[in-house]
Amino acid sequence: MKYDFTFYNPTRIHFGKESMSKLVRELENFGDNVLLLYGKNAIKRIGLYDTVVKTLKQCGKNITELGGIKPNPSYAQVLEGARLVRENNIDLILAVGGGSVIDCAKAISVSAYTEGDPWQKYWVDFKPLDSKAVPVGSILTMVGTGSEMNGGSVITNEEVTVKEGRVFPPEVYPKFSILNPEFTYSVPKLQMVSGIFDIMSHLCEQYFSGDDDNTTDYLIEAVMKSLINSSRVAIEKPEDYEARSNIMWCATVALNTITGLSKTQDWEVHGIEHQLGAYTDCPHGLGLSVISMPYYRHIYKYGIHKFVRFATNVWGVETGGKTDDEIALQGIAQLEAFSKELGIPTTLRELGCTEDMLRKIADSVEEGGGYKKLTHEDIYNILKECY
Amino acid sequence: MKYDFTFYNPTRIHFGKESMSKLVRELENFGDNVLLLYGKNAIKRIGLYDTVVKTLKQCGKNITELGGIKPNPSYAQVLEGARLVRENNIDLILAVGGGSVIDCAKAISVSAYTEGDPWQKYWVDFKPLDSKAVPVGSILTMVGTGSEMNGGSVITNEEVTVKEGRVFPPEVYPKFSILNPEFTYSVPKLQMVSGIFDIMSHLCEQYFSGDDDNTTDYLIEAVMKSLINSSRVAIEKPEDYEARSNIMWCATVALNTITGLSKTQDWEVHGIEHQLGAYTDCPHGLGLSVISMPYYRHIYKYGIHKFVRFATNVWGVETGGKTDDEIALQGIAQLEAFSKELGIPTTLRELGCTEDMLRKIADSVEEGGGYKKLTHEDIYNILKECY
Repeated sequence: MKYDFTFYNPTRIHFGKESMSKLVRELENFGDNVLLLYGKNAIKRIGLYDTVVKTLKQCGKNITELGGIKPNPSYAQVLEGARLVRENNIDLILAVGGGSVIDCAKAISVSAYTEGDPWQKYWVDFKPLDSKAVPVGSILTMVGTGSEMNGGSVITNEEVTVKEGRVFPPEVYPKFSILNPEFTYSVPKLQMVSGIFDIMSHLCEQYFSGDDDNTTDYLIEAVMKSLINSSRVAIEKPEDYEARSNIMWCATVALNTITGLSKTQDWEVHGIEHQLGAYTDCPHGLGLSVISMPYYRHIYKYGIHKFVRFATNVWGVETGGKTDDEIALQGIAQLEAFSKELGIPTTLRELGCTEDMLRKIADSVEEGGGYKKLTHEDIYNILKECY
Repeated sequence: MKYDFTFYNPTRIHFGKESMSKLVRELENFGDNVLLLYGKNAIKRIGLYDTVVKTLKQCGKNITELGGIKPNPSYAQVLEGARLVRENNIDLILAVGGGSVIDCAKAISVSAYTEGDPWQKYWVDFKPLDSKAVPVGSILTMVGTGSEMNGGSVITNEEVTVKEGRVFPPEVYPKFSILNPEFTYSVPKLQMVSGIFDIMSHLCEQYFSGDDDNTTDYLIEAVMKSLINSSRVAIEKPEDYEARSNIMWCATVALNTITGLSKTQDWEVHGIEHQLGAYTDCPHGLGLSVISMPYYRHIYKYGIHKFVRFATNVWGVETGGKTDDEIALQGIAQLEAFSKELGIPTTLRELGCTEDMLRKIADSVEEGGGYKKLTHEDIYNILKECY
């Protein structure tokens, strides 16, 4: 743990089959005006919408609703939510859904009472929070982003075709998050595997940096291994509670900052995917998977020891008689095989990306990276490789 | 993650070489009256006492001191501290030292304003907290107990020769803890290895329960492996920053509740050691180590799958051509060899235990256990084996 850090994560997590029973007690901590935020129809289909509304009413809450939050939540929806918060004097934003809805809730939380243009201030200039954050709570129905226990908020500004993530401080984290693995059973398979690869990618982005012997790296490997094992069960048996509950908790741990402590981290795959998402609106985890393979093949030589460790510790690659290059590439091949096991597409084309987008995407991503700093040309070449 | 849980840990951790620079900012969150709690002379020897007093004075704090907190903090000291809190209208109890000092601070925190006898109420009858908890902050100088990020408070009541642990709710957790690995350099080797085995034991107590495929088990294995690797470095090079910082963080993670989530857990080794400690005042981690080996050999058959997993995943024991029993016992043998590498005594005799204590200790431990419920006779036999 060579680099100094502060760790503080005050979200209260209620996890398990009976976790919804904790909602009433949590609601007591807030005033009467609740903004209920959700996506399309999924929470209505599984009956969760009715349960939540009933509970809110029983607790005497005044409900303002904002449904239809998009999978890539738009800045226009953030502004709409901020207006509702002000007009209804909202005390709690209750996000019911996946990471998109929670990300949107945080964006509304910080935008409601700030002056000027929130997008410019928080997602372009990355200025510190300068107004009160309206409390957020969440009930999670889809796993992957880890948004239930962190300050991350990825928003798409459709006017300028930019999808940008911002990490807000702990006062913006959900005050509580309710995680019932059974709520994830009804998620369509493609969304489930998108979430699984999103988790895997969060872990890779933190893992592939530094070459020190850091406790955090061991923790990341642990989450990766549990995720891989449970994912293999879940794609065969989507209602295996143990597998789905492990995946749900892996998602939370993978991005509640504990797996990033004392790590310099990378996040270039996410940087590229965000722009892919802005142009194609493809599911986030699928985009991450397609980009990851050429990206890691492009950079592994610059962090060869970590890639060798990844191959042996996570995938059990045998090392006898092999060069470091061979071992490292076998680790990446294992990651690729895992993605195929999940049934994830392997080309950008399949995700709705057209050839004329490649240069635009490459040029709109910030040059950066972990083991190797990428130029726009590097990024373009990586995109071409997986097109 | 088969069993429901709530996870909430609001301690703010400042970790690293420059972490003391965060003290001033933390002190702003509390009133002017500070109870400064510490042990023997260790913090004076390394100059930390002077630094802390100077900082407190610069921040305009009124300091009340209570030094000399024992390695097994006594209930008499808790009552003395509680009196000082009331008399001086204390706003913050600042514990500077190891787990004993922090445990004592929490005990003072909950005892100051409660009615009746706190020992009876909290450490015998395990009643819920019924008064305000005075805020606690900590500056850690010795690692092992994990007290810096949890609600644990182990107190020895010398009048009745009982050492008992109690886990208080999050409002009693330290509000902040400052962890500078360099502060641990000067800890004598025997205390360092005692701390290391304490961490290992915390992990074992949580790990050896259940035989499900639980993300938590993977996390525990990760912390064990990092701890083992860094301990081997630290016993050769006590001032290796990377190793000492990993050990420090392993200690925190091993008992900040994240490695116990959805686990039924065991804690029988700790139960036995607490009574050993009450009779001999021996260093906690050393007692845990001596008791662990006969204990695990006594129970492994009842949780054979987890012991096989321990042998292979943590110690890399080869499985080819071996029975499960052989593999499991090799894992325990590896744990024993690790303890010997650390230079930890292997018998109770070496820890000051006399033969006439064995029966008394066995009879004063609650019958319990994880994979196997122990009777007093079982406990007596285990003690005889390591006497």
